[in-house]
Formats: sequence, structure tokens, C-alpha cells
Amino acid sequence: MKRIALGIQYDGSAFSGWQTQSDVPTVQDVLERALGKFTQTRVQTVVAGRTDTGVHALGQVVHFDTELERTDFAWVRGTNAFLPQSVAVQWARPMPEDFHARFGAYERTYYYALYVHPVRSPMITGRAGWCYAALDAAAMREAAASIIGKHDFTAFRSSECQAKTPVKYLHQIDIVEQGDFIHFRFRANAFLHHMVRNLMGCFVAIGRGKHPASWMAELLEARDRKRAAPTFMPDGLYLAEVGYPENFAVPAPRLGSYPWSAVWQDNNNETKHE
Amino acid sequence: MKRIALGIQYDGSAFSGWQTQSDVPTVQDVLERALGKFTQTRVQTVVAGRTDTGVHALGQVVHFDTELERTDFAWVRGTNAFLPQSVAVQWARPMPEDFHARFGAYERTYYYALYVHPVRSPMITGRAGWCYAALDAAAMREAAASIIGKHDFTAFRSSECQAKTPVKYLHQIDIVEQGDFIHFRFRANAFLHHMVRNLMGCFVAIGRGKHPASWMAELLEARDRKRAAPTFMPDGLYLAEVGYPENFAVPAPRLGSYPWSAVWQDNNNETKHE
Repeated sequence: MKRIALGIQYDGSAFSGWQTQSDVPTVQDVLERALGKFTQTRVQTVVAGRTDTGVHALGQVVHFDTELERTDFAWVRGTNAFLPQSVAVQWARPMPEDFHARFGAYERTYYYALYVHPVRSPMITGRAGWCYAALDAAAMREAAASIIGKHDFTAFRSSECQAKTPVKYLHQIDIVEQGDFIHFRFRANAFLHHMVRNLMGCFVAIGRGKHPASWMAELLEARDRKRAAPTFMPDGLYLAEVGYPENFAVPAPRLGSYPWSAVWQDNNNETKHE
Repeated sequence: MKRIALGIQYDGSAFSGWQTQSDVPTVQDVLERALGKFTQTRVQTVVAGRTDTGVHALGQVVHFDTELERTDFAWVRGTNAFLPQSVAVQWARPMPEDFHARFGAYERTYYYALYVHPVRSPMITGRAGWCYAALDAAAMREAAASIIGKHDFTAFRSSECQAKTPVKYLHQIDIVEQGDFIHFRFRANAFLHHMVRNLMGCFVAIGRGKHPASWMAELLEARDRKRAAPTFMPDGLYLAEVGYPENFAVPAPRLGSYPWSAVWQDNNNETKHE
């Protein structure tokens, strides 16, 4: 058996999230069906980040085991031939058997693209979030700085969350204004269910002046989901990158197709893993 | 009666073009239905550019006549309440009765966003064109320069074209590389049916080295559609702006929601109307 890792992109608006469920379309379903058709065998994948309904991926990573010998590019092209337009393999690479897409990952990076304008636009439907009111980016940055570090994130955890622990290490949050958009980048060892969307709901509430920047740390401290803002829309949320130890030489995500990739291009190397 | 102009955006991938036809969804249908619900009357619109199936609009302009008195923002919000997510009014403005959305326009500007990468990406499906082979932008620019001006564009005209004359004034073509994309901007007094998509097909053929840059002028001269390249996919094509005489003070299009708006931001004022 050989272990193969794949880099995957998908438009989450077409799916009820990553994970196979009964009666609803999921990314795992269509990927495993495509791999099954290409290999003529049953293929089971392990994924780095189980994204939620409507959430996109630029740099999702999966692994699976197979007897089949194919070149890296044959895995990409062969699998893509059986995938819908909403999903595409970006790279493939053989891995040692101790590589594990989920447990081997030490960091996940999410982007959130937020359109801020009084009038909605069909250009961003399903691709970016929308806020019709102006937002104070400085207040949101102050709030972001107050929750960086190792914390119990119960306040931002959905009731459906299956994680073993609510304690996560939030490495970094960046907030960048560009034109009519505000772009957010979140880096953590792992995220709880709905954690980024719940944080986004609170950032927007602070940005609109409904709460002071200090509210974020108060929510974190109180560990009570009911006190935080409603879960924000998934439209602008992208799993951008998954970090693995260097020895696995996992290919970098193909971020060039992300329309706002230039926003994060200049400061990709600023990342600090404290 | 008062004449009202509206600025409209839409995601063309949901529609069989602008113009009302039997049995297929069009933008005109949903807009006139929304205006009908808002005004409780029958509203007929006149459009600046009858876009084709799958073609988007950032700055489409329509006009209609009504007895109803509403504020500009009430027209925007009231109409949008009855429109699907794929269409949105961006601005509304009362106009003198000699304003005509179609016959009053002296220029149309289209953008084409083209993703150039060996592997397809779901991020650009329906939003940008795709070419898996590298393209020579310098050769495409040389070809573009050779067809600027007043010409008979029969070589790039669809057989279904209803225009009275194939002679159009092509003011400007800009070709800008940014990351994994090549962005095209076309300015002309008016375009024939499929003209931009047919030009795009020829640019891609020249960019890939299948023909020299001089082929473009040869095609133009020969006035034979059969000699030109196939019609390129509509996914990346956007009606960006319609130009009217200054005295009408037509609001500028809201280009900020276009993901790649920064590409054209710096040189919007370079436009030459020769």
C-alpha cells in the first residue's frame, strides 16, 4: 500500500460541508466517488479540516491508501476528470506511511472576505460575506489582539461541536482593508465547529459599534456561547492552508485562483508560530 | 411620467442572457417582475447592453418610465427586495425624458478575467475563463493594437447578430498580467453579438503561439467568421461600464464588488476617446 496526499479546492456553496452524511451532497462524497472511478477500487479519505456547509477550501489536504501506481499529475488529472466543476484536485504527492492529513497538521489558516457596502452585490454571493454598515477596523483589530493565545474557546463553539477539548491555540488574526472589502485571516492549531463564523459575528458587532473592543475578551472569559453574537454567514470563509512538519514537504496551497490572493501575498512570511 | 435610470449588477451564469425569451430565465424577466411587484404596475425596461448567456454585468444601465414617485434609495432597496441573489440594483436616478439607456450610450466597456494555470480551479468556475497553457501577453498586446479603430468586425460577429452594421469603433484594448490571471479590457462604441468572446478566442490562439500576432489583422481584413478561432467561454466576461454624455450625470458603476477591481483602478483615467 502507498499513502497519497492530495491538495483540494472546492466551492462550498454547492455542498452540505465536507463530511459524508445521508441524503445531502458533501465534498467527501464526490471526491471518494471520483477516486473510486479513477482507481476502480473503494477509496476512503482522511481530511485535514472538516469544513462546514457553504465553507470553501483553497488548500484542503486529504490522504488515502492505495495499491495503484500513478504519476503525481495522473492522480490530479485522472481524479479531476470525475469531479464536478465545484471541486478540483490541485496537487498529488506520495507520502510516508506516518503522514496523517488530520493528526499530522499543526496549523490551519482560514480567510474571511467581507464586502462592506450599503447595497448588496451579486458578485459576492456565495463568495464573500456582506455587511451593509461601515465597520471600524481598528476596533476589530484591538478585539482580535485580545484573544490571541491558548484559550478555552467555549464562547465561540457550536453546540454540535465534536472536538475533544475547547482549548485551542489561536496563533494570529490579521485584518486588512482593501477597497470595499475587509479581509480577515485566522491561524490556529485547530478550530472548533463554527469558531471562525462565531468570531466573525462578534467582530462585525464590535466593528459596527454595538459593543466595545473589550467585549471580545469578556466573551472569551465568560465561556458562554449565548452571550456572543449570532454565527456569521459562511459565504466568505475559506480554508486556505494546512501546516505540516517540514520533513513531509507538503506542497504549498495553490492560492493564485483566489480572487483576493494579492491581499495576503505580501505578508505570507510574517507568520509567527510562538 | 418620469424616466428613471437604474445601475444593475448580475451574475450571468444563472441566466440565458439579458433579453426576455420564452421558457428560459433571463435578467430582463426577473428585473421587470421585481419592478412590477414594487410599483404594482407593468414596467418595461430599455437596456444599454443586451448581454449574452453566462455574461455578467457590473455596470449595466436600464431606463423605464413610471408615474410612481420614490426616492432614489427607495428604488434601489424596494426593487432589490424582489430580486434573486444573482441580480441587484446598485443605484437609481431620475433622468430627463431625452435620456435613452441604449441609444444615448456612446461607449461600452467589458472586462475579461482569464485564469492561466495547468490545473482548473473551482474558485473561478462561472467567474473567470480558464486556459491551461501559458500565454504570451506581449504577442496578444501586439495583436490588440492592430485592430484598434473603426473597422468592419464581420470576422468576429456571430451569425445570430442583429446589429444594423458590422462597423464598430474599437477604442481601446488593455491586457494586464496579475498573478495567475491575465485581465483584458475592451472599449468600443458598441459590440457585435459574441464579438468579445470571438476576439478572446483569437487572443488565446495567438497567446499560445498557434498563430502569429499579425493573424488578428488578417482575420479582420478577410471578414470571414469561419477563419477565426472558436467563441471563447463566457465565464470571465463582464459588462463593466456604459458611457453617456456628461450632462446626464449618470452615476459611475459600482466596481468595488468585482474581485479584481484593483487591476483597473490605477488606469481608469487613461481612457482615450479618439
